[in-house]
Amino acid sequence: MDGSVVLHVLDLVGIFVFGITGALVGVRKKLDVFGIQVLALVTGLGGGFLRDVLIGATPPAALQDWRYLVVPVVAGLLTFFLHPRIGRVERLVNIFDAAGLALFCVTGAVKATSYGLSPLPAALLGTISGIGGGVIRDILSGRVPVVLRSEIYATPAFLGAGIVVVAAALDYEELWVPVTAAVICFLIRLIAIRRGWNAPLPR
Amino acid sequence: MDGSVVLHVLDLVGIFVFGITGALVGVRKKLDVFGIQVLALVTGLGGGFLRDVLIGATPPAALQDWRYLVVPVVAGLLTFFLHPRIGRVERLVNIFDAAGLALFCVTGAVKATSYGLSPLPAALLGTISGIGGGVIRDILSGRVPVVLRSEIYATPAFLGAGIVVVAAALDYEELWVPVTAAVICFLIRLIAIRRGWNAPLPR
Amino acid sequence: MDGSVVLHVLDLVGIFVFGITGALVGVRKKLDVFGIQVLALVTGLGGGFLRDVLIGATPPAALQDWRYLVVPVVAGLLTFFLHPRIGRVERLVNIFDAAGLALFCVTGAVKATSYGLSPLPAALLGTISGIGGGVIRDILSGRVPVVLRSEIYATPAFLGAGIVVVAAALDYEELWVPVTAAVICFLIRLIAIRRGWNAPLPR
Repeated sequence: MDGSVVLHVLDLVGIFVFGITGALVGVRKKLDVFGIQVLALVTGLGGGFLRDVLIGATPPAALQDWRYLVVPVVAGLLTFFLHPRIGRVERLVNIFDAAGLALFCVTGAVKATSYGLSPLPAALLGTISGIGGGVIRDILSGRVPVVLRSEIYATPAFLGAGIVVVAAALDYEELWVPVTAAVICFLIRLIAIRRGWNAPLPR
Repeated sequence: MDGSVVLHVLDLVGIFVFGITGALVGVRKKLDVFGIQVLALVTGLGGGFLRDVLIGATPPAALQDWRYLVVPVVAGLLTFFLHPRIGRVERLVNIFDAAGLALFCVTGAVKATSYGLSPLPAALLGTISGIGGGVIRDILSGRVPVVLRSEIYATPAFLGAGIVVVAAALDYEELWVPVTAAVICFLIRLIAIRRGWNAPLPR
Repeated sequence: MDGSVVLHVLDLVGIFVFGITGALVGVRKKLDVFGIQVLALVTGLGGGFLRDVLIGATPPAALQDWRYLVVPVVAGLLTFFLHPRIGRVERLVNIFDAAGLALFCVTGAVKATSYGLSPLPAALLGTISGIGGGVIRDILSGRVPVVLRSEIYATPAFLGAGIVVVAAALDYEELWVPVTAAVICFLIRLIAIRRGWNAPLPR
């Protein structure tokens, strides 16, 4: 199994889990089945669209391959029919969102690097890919964007993207690097949610 | 009159009617004449900007041809001077918005197809073109985006775009196809508003 | 010192002052240090991203040169540590925002012209560059976008961009033109804030 297949799979899994978060927010907002599908689509595809438009990789991957479109639709339908009781929705949103963040920051950084961006911009683009879908979801549904709530969010994404970018700069292209980077980002985010970690506030 | 002229005209009419909806929302929000012009511009041009950026057709058509810019400005000024009493504004917003949705989903799908996108992505891009202007208008003016309110909105756009895309896949390029697709999208949307049609809600 | 260096410097100063406004809004919203950095980054870089994506200059300048990324980070950190008492934050936001508006409308118009856009679209693109960062900042942080509040905002940006565009159309490329255009935009905006100038409202 070569590297591009692994990244492709990580990308699709990221779209799937972000699609679930979009649909869950739609359920919580009591949207109908179509509103839920729209939120699943924009949340799943938004970060990748931002990434591809910013590096000039247009049309974005999701518009060149129909499988990219099926994934968030399936995520939205599954959520519509199988979602848990409303009270437990918010916790699930956070967990799937952390997974999407971790996957996209890594695939975004890899793609940016392969398009010739230097390390720091590539890490920023990975971060944008990771946080993009959630920001669009939250703005559309009238929530304060998760990235601005007082929690560790953009930082683990930047860290995950940074690991990938540094490894690429050292020409060390083993498959376990992006996987480990995603796991680290995911765990830091989860622990931050669990423990209610907060970063310093202004005086 | 050949096909590209017809589509050009449909595009400009779409910009005009979306421009009116933006200006009407501005009137309702009691914005001044410049705020109203800004809303007319972003609502009229937003969907096309999204479409062109996503398929890599940059600069967007509206930045290459000054007539595209005059249309929403005229729409905004006409609305500023001639708008009806506030109480009736919301109904007009809905009707013009339905027209813009119908026109843009069709022209977006045609343009996406001509840029080589396959049918499903082209239909999605048509839908994005159709809903984009209204989403940007509603986010800027602090309304819940119409696409997420409990009504039939993205679906008729997807249907209109789908008709065009299927016809193109069958190499059937008669002019009445996009026109009919737009009319179907428009009528479904209008009936949905009138009858208060709602799609199924999650349990 | 040649023209492109001057514009480069104006661009970086614009990113710096917009970064400060983003961080100040974050301070006011009581965000933590990371949330403040995110707002500084998107506010500083947002207008230029919009500009570059719309004219097809991808990846945007800020993703090709790491110095562009350091500037908003420094702006954010300085603001985090040195910000004034909350009561005086809003006035500072307005002043720095006026400076960013003035700088970006000019650099945006120059860049659009050099990418071959004709005068009216180039002036619009300059305006979009100027207002973009503030709009993204305000939407992310749940404020009514400054461009839609009842004040003179998009108009001085369009005027500043227009001066540059007309001078370019006349092949008059002296360095004092963009500088004067920025100063005019800045002063009109400041006076409008001070005097509470309002444009006509709809009846």
